[in-house]
Amino acid sequence: MNWMGTYARRAIPLRPSAIRATAIYAAQDGAISFASGSPNPTLFPHEVVARVAAALMSDPSRRAQALQYGASEGYGPLRELIAGRAGVTAAEVLLTSGSQQALDLVGKLFLDPGDRAIVTDPTYLGALQAFNLFQPSYVSVATEASSGIDLAALEQAFRRGAKFLYVMPDFANPSGVTLPLTQRRALLDMSGSFGIPIVEDQAYAELWFGPEKLPSLLALSREADKGHVIHLGTFSKSVAPGLRVGWMVAPQPVAEKLALLKQASDLQSGLLDQMIVHGVATTAFETHTAALRQAYRRRRDTMLRALANHMPQSVRWNEPDGGMFVWVTLPTPLDATAVQRRAADQEKVVIVPGVSFFANGGGAGTLRLSFSLIDERQIETGIERLARVIRSALNEAAAGAA
Amino acid sequence: MNWMGTYARRAIPLRPSAIRATAIYAAQDGAISFASGSPNPTLFPHEVVARVAAALMSDPSRRAQALQYGASEGYGPLRELIAGRAGVTAAEVLLTSGSQQALDLVGKLFLDPGDRAIVTDPTYLGALQAFNLFQPSYVSVATEASSGIDLAALEQAFRRGAKFLYVMPDFANPSGVTLPLTQRRALLDMSGSFGIPIVEDQAYAELWFGPEKLPSLLALSREADKGHVIHLGTFSKSVAPGLRVGWMVAPQPVAEKLALLKQASDLQSGLLDQMIVHGVATTAFETHTAALRQAYRRRRDTMLRALANHMPQSVRWNEPDGGMFVWVTLPTPLDATAVQRRAADQEKVVIVPGVSFFANGGGAGTLRLSFSLIDERQIETGIERLARVIRSALNEAAAGAA
Repeated sequence: MNWMGTYARRAIPLRPSAIRATAIYAAQDGAISFASGSPNPTLFPHEVVARVAAALMSDPSRRAQALQYGASEGYGPLRELIAGRAGVTAAEVLLTSGSQQALDLVGKLFLDPGDRAIVTDPTYLGALQAFNLFQPSYVSVATEASSGIDLAALEQAFRRGAKFLYVMPDFANPSGVTLPLTQRRALLDMSGSFGIPIVEDQAYAELWFGPEKLPSLLALSREADKGHVIHLGTFSKSVAPGLRVGWMVAPQPVAEKLALLKQASDLQSGLLDQMIVHGVATTAFETHTAALRQAYRRRRDTMLRALANHMPQSVRWNEPDGGMFVWVTLPTPLDATAVQRRAADQEKVVIVPGVSFFANGGGAGTLRLSFSLIDERQIETGIERLARVIRSALNEAAAGAA
Repeated sequence: MNWMGTYARRAIPLRPSAIRATAIYAAQDGAISFASGSPNPTLFPHEVVARVAAALMSDPSRRAQALQYGASEGYGPLRELIAGRAGVTAAEVLLTSGSQQALDLVGKLFLDPGDRAIVTDPTYLGALQAFNLFQPSYVSVATEASSGIDLAALEQAFRRGAKFLYVMPDFANPSGVTLPLTQRRALLDMSGSFGIPIVEDQAYAELWFGPEKLPSLLALSREADKGHVIHLGTFSKSVAPGLRVGWMVAPQPVAEKLALLKQASDLQSGLLDQMIVHGVATTAFETHTAALRQAYRRRRDTMLRALANHMPQSVRWNEPDGGMFVWVTLPTPLDATAVQRRAADQEKVVIVPGVSFFANGGGAGTLRLSFSLIDERQIETGIERLARVIRSALNEAAAGAA
């Protein structure tokens, strides 16, 4: 059977992602991996989850509800809770199976083949994977730690027309870039004047390390009645990803369309998961996320110190205000994919080259380091080893050029 | 903002399904509803689920696994278990968020706009909803309780070419039709000779009421090395739908493509759900499903007795060998949508007209009665009331014709 001949166009080019391939490197004995963007399981609210789950399972009527079909829109009390926090109505909230499903629904709602989607350079790989199934063409706009998003390029992209701008305004995966308040306002102005919605992905929103959290595009948009925002959130980083609870906020008619798309896609998300997350979110959310912020900030600080201690002067990196990632730029002519291979082979250190995060190519000299999962004591060792690899690659390049 | 103008073609025509609309009728005080196809929550394995969940939550390492990200393919031990039962390898098994997500993945894998998909008349509404997002054209082939699927029409459809045949061989939703063994073999012959895969949906497979279960198309196909089958199963009817655990079986290269589509769609299904289902499936599955079969068979028998006692002679219905549905055909010129309205208004009885289950129209005189959720004592009362509505509609039609 020639299965390939039966596939839809969207399915033919699918290949395992480059990040998945790093799992092979990371599985080596003694490997130190900066690749995985998973949250740290030692920081999960284990006891609270266990307590909430036990209470739920011992209440016959709530247990019966958790095991039965429910509304495609999601568990009512959790929608209310999210709505209350976001300052919107529950009718504008749709619960999803993680925010990855929200990206799938965004693709389903907006993208016909060839439609333009504006993304940042670099952008979240999972968003590209989700959108790719709907065969868009991408317009990519540069972001930098120092200057945020390139507003002139963005305006040009808006002017050309697009179905939406997809952006992660807070300590983005992979770049760690945070958009300053003025840029958030500028984005909403453009969204309003060009009539192009912004898909705001706030997956890491609870993991802010600075003195305060910047307002979301959603909040700013509602406050000033400006711009059109579809907001994505998730409990994957703030509670636990195995529970698969994310959400979308959209104007009610849009939320209703999204609920129909959700219904066609998987009827509904798991009710037990939603009820557990609701229990955790109503009992221990603030103290838990405060502890998370502290733990991840400590890891970030360790990584930044190690980078400063060990990296050659010509290597640059950002200092993210939150999240899980440091973005590194190697000096020309180093190629991060070559460095990845060499680091894995020679030093058992695993990194993710940046190229996968660029919708239209580029970023050969960039790489992503995650500080979320790795043991703190290993961060220093791993960065020291990685620096050794980069230094020797630099020396070789200099020798080759000479 | 003109949101409608930003939507993809697939999203524009989306409307709430007719079955959802019945929920409004069913919510009336004192209503008797034959509409919902939900499993009966009094039959869920509550104690086993609670025990399994408690054990899982008190084991730190399994709990940590349940809360963390996992493989897109699903929880290994559950894949092994399903593979063992189906006589395939675990690499051929992909876990999904209910079998509805499997239908979404089928659409994603096969369907470009305009591609032909063969479905039965009537067919599962959720399958049409899932496939519709990928804009196929449907070729529909009649099924009847007495004769199964129309093999001549099916061969003609295969000859014209299609991406796949979607079929529910056991006590289908909504028709209750079961395909006899000879027809199953004929389907596989055609699939083999025309090189067109069969998507077999066995959602109700564990709910057989006869002396034995017929072999699945998957099993027959592997046994005889004939035909190409993508098999869909779910624990929604045999354990609990709120846990959202379904599965697909496909030849390994196809399963790998499906896993990539799954990864893009929601990364993975909930691990806690998968681990709970695995625990239930390894401890109490056989005794539990035996009890389910007995309970649902009793409900079916009550419904068939009530139909025989109350319905006018000109009304016909099937006697399903399993599942949750009886399919009723009204005499000409009665329209089931008119009967639905009248039954709800005059007798507070809720039914689902058959029209929604026909991909290319038709079925105006058909309706679906579910016996799964309704209280057994109410079945008799509800059917008596429905018969009264049909009888009076028949009388009026006769008077009008006179």
